[in-house]
Amino acid sequence: MNSMPSPFTLARRAALMNPSIIREILKVTEQPGIVSLAGGLPSADTFPVQAVREATEKVLREHPREALQYAASEGFAPLREWVAAHLATQHDMRVHAGQVLITTGSQQGLDIAAKVLIDAGSRVLVETPTYLGALQAFAPYEPRVVAMASDHEGPLPSALSAAADVAGERARFAYLLPNFQNPTGHVYTEARRAALVNAARTAGLPLIEDNPYGDLWYDQAPPPPLATRWPEGVLYLGSFSKVLSPGLRLGYVVAPHALYPKLLQAKQAADLHTSIFNQRIVYEVVRNGLLDTHVPTIRARYKVQRDAMQAALEKHLSGVVQWQRPVGGMFFWLELPAGIDAMALLPKAVAAGMAFVPGEPFFAEAPLRNTLRLSFVTVAAAQIETGVAALAKVLKEAG
Amino acid sequence: MNSMPSPFTLARRAALMNPSIIREILKVTEQPGIVSLAGGLPSADTFPVQAVREATEKVLREHPREALQYAASEGFAPLREWVAAHLATQHDMRVHAGQVLITTGSQQGLDIAAKVLIDAGSRVLVETPTYLGALQAFAPYEPRVVAMASDHEGPLPSALSAAADVAGERARFAYLLPNFQNPTGHVYTEARRAALVNAARTAGLPLIEDNPYGDLWYDQAPPPPLATRWPEGVLYLGSFSKVLSPGLRLGYVVAPHALYPKLLQAKQAADLHTSIFNQRIVYEVVRNGLLDTHVPTIRARYKVQRDAMQAALEKHLSGVVQWQRPVGGMFFWLELPAGIDAMALLPKAVAAGMAFVPGEPFFAEAPLRNTLRLSFVTVAAAQIETGVAALAKVLKEAG
Repeated sequence: MNSMPSPFTLARRAALMNPSIIREILKVTEQPGIVSLAGGLPSADTFPVQAVREATEKVLREHPREALQYAASEGFAPLREWVAAHLATQHDMRVHAGQVLITTGSQQGLDIAAKVLIDAGSRVLVETPTYLGALQAFAPYEPRVVAMASDHEGPLPSALSAAADVAGERARFAYLLPNFQNPTGHVYTEARRAALVNAARTAGLPLIEDNPYGDLWYDQAPPPPLATRWPEGVLYLGSFSKVLSPGLRLGYVVAPHALYPKLLQAKQAADLHTSIFNQRIVYEVVRNGLLDTHVPTIRARYKVQRDAMQAALEKHLSGVVQWQRPVGGMFFWLELPAGIDAMALLPKAVAAGMAFVPGEPFFAEAPLRNTLRLSFVTVAAAQIETGVAALAKVLKEAG
Repeated sequence: MNSMPSPFTLARRAALMNPSIIREILKVTEQPGIVSLAGGLPSADTFPVQAVREATEKVLREHPREALQYAASEGFAPLREWVAAHLATQHDMRVHAGQVLITTGSQQGLDIAAKVLIDAGSRVLVETPTYLGALQAFAPYEPRVVAMASDHEGPLPSALSAAADVAGERARFAYLLPNFQNPTGHVYTEARRAALVNAARTAGLPLIEDNPYGDLWYDQAPPPPLATRWPEGVLYLGSFSKVLSPGLRLGYVVAPHALYPKLLQAKQAADLHTSIFNQRIVYEVVRNGLLDTHVPTIRARYKVQRDAMQAALEKHLSGVVQWQRPVGGMFFWLELPAGIDAMALLPKAVAAGMAFVPGEPFFAEAPLRNTLRLSFVTVAAAQIETGVAALAKVLKEAG
């Protein structure tokens, strides 16, 4: 390592940037022999490898020069058209392809939205708890992040209304994950959606609606997105990561017309454009309706594992921890007995052969330390019970 | 379009973000029948399509799950090792793979460097003229951009020294393109490199060294990078865009140890990681030395076209415009007679059947409006002469 003094002076915002606690945790927990329920990854068993192979061959056979050349910052036009059509048929959203901006994963959507909307000191409102990656994307732009009181249906409309304006200064946006949120798995009811949008519209508070998990429902489809209720007030983020492949890094933003040009400029400054090779491949994969048959197979697989985790929790932890059975997504959210610190519990759990993610990093303010997240999608049903049983044993010893 | 009032409030920085003037120009100029010397693209004829095809097949056959899954923010470890080895053998740089951060094109390297190093009001120093994409990457972080006096070998060391500290406030960095710069094609001599690094080190002024074109030399290889002279003071940016394919969006940053962690956090916040599918493909393409045979074919092709443009300029514009024959890269930089505004000339040139890029957008301060950039890489030699002849005709009419 280098011991020379560094001439670099860091920007003030650099002090607000931190390594992902979860990625650090995963490094510790992903050891051989550990049943890891900590991951936030989809199951690699769901990746449509053959379809990707065929699509890639087609792209390199028919459009090699275009697929390997620079391309438009907005994204591949046929893919933008496909996204608009998909949102119409699957989510009742009526948008133009001209509102669709292809991003390098939906994480980039969070970054460019923050870049365009957050000034140092701006307030932004988030759920309690919320997606850690969004907190990381927002942090470099130096917002004051306000955690809204939330229940198992999402944030309370009264909390949104109360935080929208403080001393005449309006928050820049509320960041919401209505469907099977990471980490809690919660889903907003139709009534909660109506009440939240009503409160936001009344307050003139724009929304960022993040929907990476909306297609992963196991019992019934969730209600339509918030964006259907207030198109000009909602910036909507979607992703191919959970229904096709995260390794291709493809997501999209659907922006109100007034906001689109600035997001496009931010995108252009950030990476010129998202890999056109990847965009063309994904377009070939989805254009003939593969998702119509593929996503139900993911749902069927994950539902079995969701049910296995629910059964294991009922068997081993009923009466000890509190949880809601998630009706979609990838996660269970557990509330441990008061006084138990999940972060302190983790090394004991790893020693006992299982891993989870402590809930603490997901809170923007006032963390509930007696919470943790379990993923049910990457570990087979039998292993899920082994992991939950190990957690129960460790909890019993700690209690 | 939507006529509802927008509830979104833009961040202050959004006013500093602008559409790429060049992309707007290209939309106008890339019409059928126009000899466009305006593009900044490499020639698609140079893309190693068969090698990409074979690499993709191998990746999807041997590592489909890993190639389509989430991956490390630092980048694919074997590719990082390859970059470190490549820089050692090709550019005399001695770096650890642990200093290499894979980025989504080198444009992302500019974005995350700016995010980590620029506060609102920070001064950053650039060449006169400089790469427009860097100005766009820096702008959202609200720097004061200072254009250093430059000649055909790059910025003057005295200008760097003079601008490094102003009233006790040190500039955050100087952004330098020593090899075949876009737009001027200039290359720094060995002596200029030594003098600039000496001046920077004396002033404690870090450097960002951008080297997308360094492998595209036609007469002799350029001197070693500035980073070899001051490893702890130089952030080095590289790219696969000009030697393999820009559509894959793969670049890299080589960071001093002290700076790496913050760049990594900025990268993670920006898009989690660069497509691992693309990283594995490029690794398969380059691991067995393809660049050793492939890059010389690009050089040979571009050299012929460089010579064709030089001959055409000598034939049609000698004594009318000033230029230096570039010894690498993709561009000629022309200085027109005083009083001719290249931006105003462009529509006339397009009407006469050719297109160029006016020099004005490349200047951070005090643009020389009688300058323009010509690319010699995407148009065949015969067409190059047609384009240059048309430019000469239009200039004659304007003069």
